[in-house]
Amino acid sequence: MTEPAISSFDVPALEALPVDLRERIEAVRAKTGFVPNVFLVLARRPDEFRAFFTYYDAVMLRQGGLTKAEKEMIVVATSAANQCPYCVIAHGALVRLFSKNPRLGDQIAVNYRQADLAPRQRLMLDAALKLAQAPQTFGADDVQALLAAGFSREDVWDIGAITALFALSNRLAHLSDMRPNDEFFTMGRESG
Amino acid sequence: MTEPAISSFDVPALEALPVDLRERIEAVRAKTGFVPNVFLVLARRPDEFRAFFTYYDAVMLRQGGLTKAEKEMIVVATSAANQCPYCVIAHGALVRLFSKNPRLGDQIAVNYRQADLAPRQRLMLDAALKLAQAPQTFGADDVQALLAAGFSREDVWDIGAITALFALSNRLAHLSDMRPNDEFFTMGRESG
Amino acid sequence: MTEPAISSFDVPALEALPVDLRERIEAVRAKTGFVPNVFLVLARRPDEFRAFFTYYDAVMLRQGGLTKAEKEMIVVATSAANQCPYCVIAHGALVRLFSKNPRLGDQIAVNYRQADLAPRQRLMLDAALKLAQAPQTFGADDVQALLAAGFSREDVWDIGAITALFALSNRLAHLSDMRPNDEFFTMGRESG
Amino acid sequence: MTEPAISSFDVPALEALPVDLRERIEAVRAKTGFVPNVFLVLARRPDEFRAFFTYYDAVMLRQGGLTKAEKEMIVVATSAANQCPYCVIAHGALVRLFSKNPRLGDQIAVNYRQADLAPRQRLMLDAALKLAQAPQTFGADDVQALLAAGFSREDVWDIGAITALFALSNRLAHLSDMRPNDEFFTMGRESG
Amino acid sequence: MTEPAISSFDVPALEALPVDLRERIEAVRAKTGFVPNVFLVLARRPDEFRAFFTYYDAVMLRQGGLTKAEKEMIVVATSAANQCPYCVIAHGALVRLFSKNPRLGDQIAVNYRQADLAPRQRLMLDAALKLAQAPQTFGADDVQALLAAGFSREDVWDIGAITALFALSNRLAHLSDMRPNDEFFTMGRESG
Amino acid sequence: MTEPAISSFDVPALEALPVDLRERIEAVRAKTGFVPNVFLVLARRPDEFRAFFTYYDAVMLRQGGLTKAEKEMIVVATSAANQCPYCVIAHGALVRLFSKNPRLGDQIAVNYRQADLAPRQRLMLDAALKLAQAPQTFGADDVQALLAAGFSREDVWDIGAITALFALSNRLAHLSDMRPNDEFFTMGRESG
Repeated sequence: MTEPAISSFDVPALEALPVDLRERIEAVRAKTGFVPNVFLVLARRPDEFRAFFTYYDAVMLRQGGLTKAEKEMIVVATSAANQCPYCVIAHGALVRLFSKNPRLGDQIAVNYRQADLAPRQRLMLDAALKLAQAPQTFGADDVQALLAAGFSREDVWDIGAITALFALSNRLAHLSDMRPNDEFFTMGRESG
Repeated sequence: MTEPAISSFDVPALEALPVDLRERIEAVRAKTGFVPNVFLVLARRPDEFRAFFTYYDAVMLRQGGLTKAEKEMIVVATSAANQCPYCVIAHGALVRLFSKNPRLGDQIAVNYRQADLAPRQRLMLDAALKLAQAPQTFGADDVQALLAAGFSREDVWDIGAITALFALSNRLAHLSDMRPNDEFFTMGRESG
Repeated sequence: MTEPAISSFDVPALEALPVDLRERIEAVRAKTGFVPNVFLVLARRPDEFRAFFTYYDAVMLRQGGLTKAEKEMIVVATSAANQCPYCVIAHGALVRLFSKNPRLGDQIAVNYRQADLAPRQRLMLDAALKLAQAPQTFGADDVQALLAAGFSREDVWDIGAITALFALSNRLAHLSDMRPNDEFFTMGRESG
Repeated sequence: MTEPAISSFDVPALEALPVDLRERIEAVRAKTGFVPNVFLVLARRPDEFRAFFTYYDAVMLRQGGLTKAEKEMIVVATSAANQCPYCVIAHGALVRLFSKNPRLGDQIAVNYRQADLAPRQRLMLDAALKLAQAPQTFGADDVQALLAAGFSREDVWDIGAITALFALSNRLAHLSDMRPNDEFFTMGRESG
Repeated sequence: MTEPAISSFDVPALEALPVDLRERIEAVRAKTGFVPNVFLVLARRPDEFRAFFTYYDAVMLRQGGLTKAEKEMIVVATSAANQCPYCVIAHGALVRLFSKNPRLGDQIAVNYRQADLAPRQRLMLDAALKLAQAPQTFGADDVQALLAAGFSREDVWDIGAITALFALSNRLAHLSDMRPNDEFFTMGRESG
Repeated sequence: MTEPAISSFDVPALEALPVDLRERIEAVRAKTGFVPNVFLVLARRPDEFRAFFTYYDAVMLRQGGLTKAEKEMIVVATSAANQCPYCVIAHGALVRLFSKNPRLGDQIAVNYRQADLAPRQRLMLDAALKLAQAPQTFGADDVQALLAAGFSREDVWDIGAITALFALSNRLAHLSDMRPNDEFFTMGRESG
């Protein structure tokens, strides 16, 4: 039985990649134990690969008012609205790992309104979903609601920027029919 | 009378910015005659600024099968679906300039289905709009329709990548209530 | 190069029209300097032409609490929701002319929520859009909100009647693939 | 017990109306046995009343390729999509009377796709509903489908014009909370 | 002229049915004077027939805080949202009979928001429609609104259970293209 | 730390239940090792409990052309469209168990269009989703497409009946804020 393709677009051989891409990919493999498919699928366009992961790091690794788990909640909730398999499955695993709650990823993927969240997290996801799905209606009232719940203006930007980045990411994944690695389905499912 | 704010978020003073941002901004001003607000609004987060414009250059300046005008058509059509003032007004000007058609920007902004487009451009925008608005339904059939119309697989990626980048861009603009510069409203309106 | 057709339906020759239609058309030409295509496209059905412009005059020329610019704002905002090129482009020009704001037409066409409007105008457009897009949900609460903002009951009727007339007008324009005259794209763009 | 109001707006006394309106209203009463509420509700604006009924006559009484019953089918199907009580109830009665089918009005009001219609009538309503609900997507393909089913170009205009007129009419009825007369509920229900 | 089929699926002969189904059907005929088509259409799957009518009785015949007319209002309003001919026509008759209001069935079928209802009934239907059409958004706030209007928790369950049962029922009727009996169109139309 | 409630409605004590309910519940516990919460939540209404599980058995245990895994695919795909946590999580586990594919449940929950399915299964889910989400448009063409793909008419009924039952089930779960048991999250995740 052959392995299913990880994308409907050609995926370059690792050894054919520019050295900086190869180094980034090998660093991920060393840390995680496998290479998430997004690295391989985006590598066909080295400039876009570099821009994407620079953006990703800028937004997702930035120190701010949101926890790592909360950032991943935004990714999963907005990607679920876009029905993006790669982003939901891969980042669902990260929600589980960062929250140490083995059920939270699936809960948010199905319906964040019924997930085990703090009220401020529910509000954060309400805003993110609005920006993801009806951005033309997002406005001063939504910012105000977040501030009133204790988020800072920088937190508001983070919520919006993560939502925006995964609006891009979801569409790249749908464009390329990007397949989540098998590993993501099971990571972090051992009870916390 | 005071100038309307260009964003609901604070905009940093130019002189407070890292030198590479300042240089990029001054280069744009030298070329265009003014500083498009997106540079000022995103500058509050230098890392995200760098990532955004790296991505922008990678996608929009890449030499490929799409003309500059066609790339801007995708931006305007998908941004219009998201009702994004900055992107529609600024890139509507670029559609006018690159296509040398002073009406095409507005036509696409209102309804690309009735714009003066070649059939393959109409098809290109059908695909872009589907990926923008219902990405979960985008699939092999859509890619096939583009290939059948003469687009290469690299063109398909470009169509998707531009759509994806402006899915992000539209949401950043809505998040920050980014205001288009007055200059964009009139650029390229002299008949071609 | 041939001129693009102004409609997918046959357009009658001016000299073949009933005299009252010809007179109305010549009067418009004398005043405006050109004949807006809606007059030519609707002329194929003289009875409907007469009824349409009688209705138009009754609603749009009526003296009441709404300014001319506000009436045109309703036209542009609701026609933009229906993505109607003729109505958005032609009445966008009228917004510019009557408001003496060269950017307001485009702002409303893209997203009235972010346009430079007074709060009561924003509310007026909220109501108009609701009646245009989800008329079955329009009710006493919406009327009450308008009254509370200082509109009279006659103003409310005007807001509704303009919305209703352009619900018709947009559909006639889509039916006939009515093309906006080139002149409308540039009228009123000189700064106020 | 008091009668329910026929509108949320004031309804003028018959004797206060301009003579031409009174004459039209009395003529209807003489023919039908009662005054349909639309005449009373619209009478508060005599100019709009005149324009509306001129339009109505131009479109609904015009001799053409559509039968009277077919015209009313378009009214009921599109008004049902807008959930307009006055138009669905009043014109449902007319469908029953003109088609001599006591069930057809209700069938179309609930779901025209399952009503007892000829295939060409089903197609006619598909086009009307598209123009009513997603006018921005109505185009040459839709016209072509009607022509292929045997409709003439004049029939296509009629289908579109009726749809357009009731897009207006539905919104006036929702604006004014127009109540259907009790008589309409039972007219034409005796089996054909 | 042949009778129209009552379903697109085969309908079994009465005499071929298990005795308990036949008895139930004959009891309905004895009481109502005719056999509603739902009994005949579902009889092709005796186990599902038994389950369906057991469920129906459990929910619709249960003594509780909702009147019989109110239960039927929920059926008609939610079935109208699903455009289900059988359920709207048959249960519209029951609304007329139980409410002794010959117009209420049609009013609710077209637009419950404009029907002659008590405020608490309007609220009941708001909740039912939300559960029918956007169940993923139904939550504690909706339950609270019903309790605040004087409904008990058991009433809330009843509202939800009726909505849920007709979510099923509407889909079975659409699956089988179930035709309402002619009798339902006229039952209860004599004035109350 | 207290256990989260399994429903927003009161859940009866097992020992207070009618004996037949208790026996059914104990039989499930004996077989599965735990009591799925749906049994406890629905038990507050014994008649509805009996009807629901009779229906469930009639539809889900019936021998026919669909495999057990295929039936569960329909449940997961339609319940995901309704964002129903209980049904997606519990039946996602059953998809994994019956298909012996530890990833298929999540794949279908996120986007059945990109799941590892045979073409006929994809078509089966297209039909189920249409009946679940736009039942008013389901018709003869949809049945025909299933027959053309090799499904029998009885299979078509099964597809529709399962979809219909979970239209009900999803709404009961949303009504009662039904919580999936922790066990369901991990069942069947060991590779097949």
